[in-house]
Amino acid sequence: MKIVCQKSDLLTGVNIALKAVPAKSTMPILECLVLDVEADTIKLISNDMEIGIETIVKGQVLEPGKVALNARVFSEIIRRLPDNDITVETNPSYLTTILCEKAKFTISGRSSEEFPELPRVEKDRAVILSQFTLKEVIRQTVFSISDNESNKIMTGELFEIQNDQFRIASLDGHRISIRKVTLKEEYAPLKVIVPGKTLNEISKILSGDVESEVRMYFTTQHVLFEFDQTIMLSRLIEGQYYRIDQMLSGDYQTKITVNKKEFLNCLDRTTLLIKESEKKPVIVGMSDTKMKLKMTSSIGSLDEEIEIVKEGKDILIGFNPKFLIDALRVIEDEEVDIYLINPKAPCFIKDKEESYIYLILPVNFNTVR
Amino acid sequence: MKIVCQKSDLLTGVNIALKAVPAKSTMPILECLVLDVEADTIKLISNDMEIGIETIVKGQVLEPGKVALNARVFSEIIRRLPDNDITVETNPSYLTTILCEKAKFTISGRSSEEFPELPRVEKDRAVILSQFTLKEVIRQTVFSISDNESNKIMTGELFEIQNDQFRIASLDGHRISIRKVTLKEEYAPLKVIVPGKTLNEISKILSGDVESEVRMYFTTQHVLFEFDQTIMLSRLIEGQYYRIDQMLSGDYQTKITVNKKEFLNCLDRTTLLIKESEKKPVIVGMSDTKMKLKMTSSIGSLDEEIEIVKEGKDILIGFNPKFLIDALRVIEDEEVDIYLINPKAPCFIKDKEESYIYLILPVNFNTVR
Repeated sequence: MKIVCQKSDLLTGVNIALKAVPAKSTMPILECLVLDVEADTIKLISNDMEIGIETIVKGQVLEPGKVALNARVFSEIIRRLPDNDITVETNPSYLTTILCEKAKFTISGRSSEEFPELPRVEKDRAVILSQFTLKEVIRQTVFSISDNESNKIMTGELFEIQNDQFRIASLDGHRISIRKVTLKEEYAPLKVIVPGKTLNEISKILSGDVESEVRMYFTTQHVLFEFDQTIMLSRLIEGQYYRIDQMLSGDYQTKITVNKKEFLNCLDRTTLLIKESEKKPVIVGMSDTKMKLKMTSSIGSLDEEIEIVKEGKDILIGFNPKFLIDALRVIEDEEVDIYLINPKAPCFIKDKEESYIYLILPVNFNTVR
Repeated sequence: MKIVCQKSDLLTGVNIALKAVPAKSTMPILECLVLDVEADTIKLISNDMEIGIETIVKGQVLEPGKVALNARVFSEIIRRLPDNDITVETNPSYLTTILCEKAKFTISGRSSEEFPELPRVEKDRAVILSQFTLKEVIRQTVFSISDNESNKIMTGELFEIQNDQFRIASLDGHRISIRKVTLKEEYAPLKVIVPGKTLNEISKILSGDVESEVRMYFTTQHVLFEFDQTIMLSRLIEGQYYRIDQMLSGDYQTKITVNKKEFLNCLDRTTLLIKESEKKPVIVGMSDTKMKLKMTSSIGSLDEEIEIVKEGKDILIGFNPKFLIDALRVIEDEEVDIYLINPKAPCFIKDKEESYIYLILPVNFNTVR
């Protein structure tokens, strides 16, 4: 095998493929990238048995072939070579030389035969989104998945399609985050659970470009993302997702409108009073034109007032400030509407079109204090 | 005590004073900043028993007084308040309120009586440098102090003055780093050892401005740095420094001139072949117009050539690449001169004026291989 690539092209490909290389594995072959070179394509392949990536690298094929190279070592070498043409050449015993200007690295590669092939996915009709949209809805919801592996379903996100509506949702037992976007076309109904890890990794690769597309193909066990020169294949999480629609009541007793940045900055200040050992809530009191926030811990106390517009009843309610902060951080609106029922019922931060809904459970502050 | 300060002024002062607050201390009072407010000055004081800092904060004094406040909590509060006037007020039982716009923090302070006062230093004649110069010479030498506390002298740097020559040096048993600058005036001879920790902390505070001065006062036990609105006082390390002049031979058998950036990039590439468990040297061979570098480890090998200008004998010598990298990184020259004697004698990287000298011991690569 022998190829010549521009350093920047090769590095881009390597950085993409690295996202599916496990840090440590009981199968050392998985710590490799496979360079799969055919007559006219150079492909980099990685696979951590949950996610698989194939990406095509621009370059010149001098001799086809296939080799598995330690991913960390190969990527570090490419990263540190000068910004020029890089030649990668493998001999029949997989000894690989990487040449750039006057620098010549020699590392031992291995046969790619042991390397587990990515499962073949029957491509049905693609669901099409812009890279920007997919990256955004992931960022705006992925923070509220649970990292508790004992409840597998909570570690993933719901992908749901009905007609032209695409809904993505995550929940962790304290809160639910939902984003909804309208697709350009209508599709058959779909409801699957995509692992949070997959979403975290793909959002690092997606360009965030409004003009570029992602095509998503779903099977009963897999989802395949296709974009630019790359495909990412991931297992789905098996099982039935929570019935979130039942949790989204439309009733409310109090509705307030508040400046997002002011509210966020104030909540951010409360967090410096939080100690690991004591879970203190921020107590929020809404009266006619004011929201009063109070937090007290062994470190000290904070009192603050923010102007609001209120409809309905006065209310005094306690929250874990972190949950409010997480939601507010990913809302772009300058003003947000918050809907409340009573101090024991969840609050909702949502816009009129319900393009986003953040449900947050309150903390019973009477017993906590 | 009651003061009003602009957030930015107070934060600048707090950030400076924090440099002498220990992360954890058996004396909890040391984890505090003292706010020492007199009729017309607001002073922040910190002291970790090795370094002490006093810095003056611009602001309005409404009522003089003194209070000790937990440094981490106080600094976090100031950091997160809006960019506006901050009022700090303490009542007779040291309960302290920090008010900014509509946010009001309340924390408990304590009497500053327990707080150890900074030792009074008899100010003799000041040695004057620009902040830029002091910050630079520290950065250019401090990396080769030893962090092995069992040899206290090696954890500090030599400050030596002879006439108008100021020399700063550090060594760790494998290398010596020396910088020399010419002062504007002549001074009495001086030779003291300043703790590396002091130098690391002060270089974080120094502005790096060419126009601003630092005045250094030395006593037998202390050094006092005075600059802007701040003084930093540090203990000196007791004892006699190594006789470094005896180690700086002027003889050489080989002198080469090499492009610094090319050499540095190549050495940087060798480091990716280093494994913690095996200390492999880079083997450098100098012949007429070329320097050949070779590094071999269990990860792989690198061969590279760099063009040089050589005087004297050919030589083959081994180095720990990290030591060469550390020295080359802080040299601003495009081309550097390297002087060599034989494969067992130290090499010198220095300029003609000897404004910098970096001595590095070679590695005996025959036995290592």
